[in-house]
Amino acid sequence: MPAVQAKNSTTERTSEVYRTAAELIVDKGFGGTSIGDIATAVGMTKASLYHHISGKQDMLYQIMQHAMDELERTVIAPVRLIEDPEQRLREIMRLHIMGAIEHGVAITIVMSEISHLEPDQRQDIIKRRKAYHALARQALRQLADQGRLRDLDVNIATMHIMNTLVGIARWYPNDITSNQTRLIRETVEYNVAAILKTTS
Amino acid sequence: MPAVQAKNSTTERTSEVYRTAAELIVDKGFGGTSIGDIATAVGMTKASLYHHISGKQDMLYQIMQHAMDELERTVIAPVRLIEDPEQRLREIMRLHIMGAIEHGVAITIVMSEISHLEPDQRQDIIKRRKAYHALARQALRQLADQGRLRDLDVNIATMHIMNTLVGIARWYPNDITSNQTRLIRETVEYNVAAILKTTS
Repeated sequence: MPAVQAKNSTTERTSEVYRTAAELIVDKGFGGTSIGDIATAVGMTKASLYHHISGKQDMLYQIMQHAMDELERTVIAPVRLIEDPEQRLREIMRLHIMGAIEHGVAITIVMSEISHLEPDQRQDIIKRRKAYHALARQALRQLADQGRLRDLDVNIATMHIMNTLVGIARWYPNDITSNQTRLIRETVEYNVAAILKTTS
Repeated sequence: MPAVQAKNSTTERTSEVYRTAAELIVDKGFGGTSIGDIATAVGMTKASLYHHISGKQDMLYQIMQHAMDELERTVIAPVRLIEDPEQRLREIMRLHIMGAIEHGVAITIVMSEISHLEPDQRQDIIKRRKAYHALARQALRQLADQGRLRDLDVNIATMHIMNTLVGIARWYPNDITSNQTRLIRETVEYNVAAILKTTS
């Protein structure tokens, strides 16, 4: 089925453009990165690049939507099937870190460049991010209902969990020599120890 | 002593310029903020503004150095006097959050705009940030030596603590309705529960 192959190939090429663009933006700043820079980095002419993106600001929006799509596909959808809230939360953390490493940490870092979006675009991204946070918060609420949570503020704890996950992108792999398995285990156990009552 | 008063007044005015500039950069991005925008926001002519800053990039560097100076003065110096590592770590967290709120969260957020600095400037800031992280890491190492730490990776745990602190600037006060005292208590207890062995 050549049509499908062409479609897949285009999608992969677009992902690659997003990833490279994100790396450039992280390295040189959004203002310091031109469409020409991105074209050079991905080995395309500017004209070909415009088949994938419609402009620099739209591209930033598309990168963020793409990151949220991937989060939806690789984290949010699978964990919804997990009934136990502790296991669900552990999987959110594990899959989030795996995705961040797999898709390139630059994409995570670029998510903070939200100030460069149009107000409508900004609202779209904030809404999707809030839905993601709500998924973690819901797991904490269920744990509280089941008497398994320490006496803590669920909103603040949700933000701390999210910040340990998002923060990984800013220092991995430069400051940490550990491998991915260790990073996942340490991060999951850190947050679980922070929120759960100790069983003794 | 009018000379001293003039000096203090200049310093305060400069702090105010930094704070306002940081807020503009967070709102509009570094590339989207002009010296003219900053002058208008602080109610100065561009010529007067140039008494405080020497250019946009230098200003960003000065803002970051100022933030590190404040961290040094209000967090690092006082906690060095605390002998017990748990108490030292608790104070790092408490004073960090108090400082972030007092100096304006925009200054913390601007710290991530490090890509806009010259390589030498970037290295200066990274070096100071590493020294700060080392202070927390040292407290964790002492706790480990005293047998009070859970079995965890001290480098990863240090980063998680730092990310919960830095992350506060990104969502306070928009997403959290709690007050400063609650925010400090919850954050300190979150991280302490994450790292210490339970006493039972």
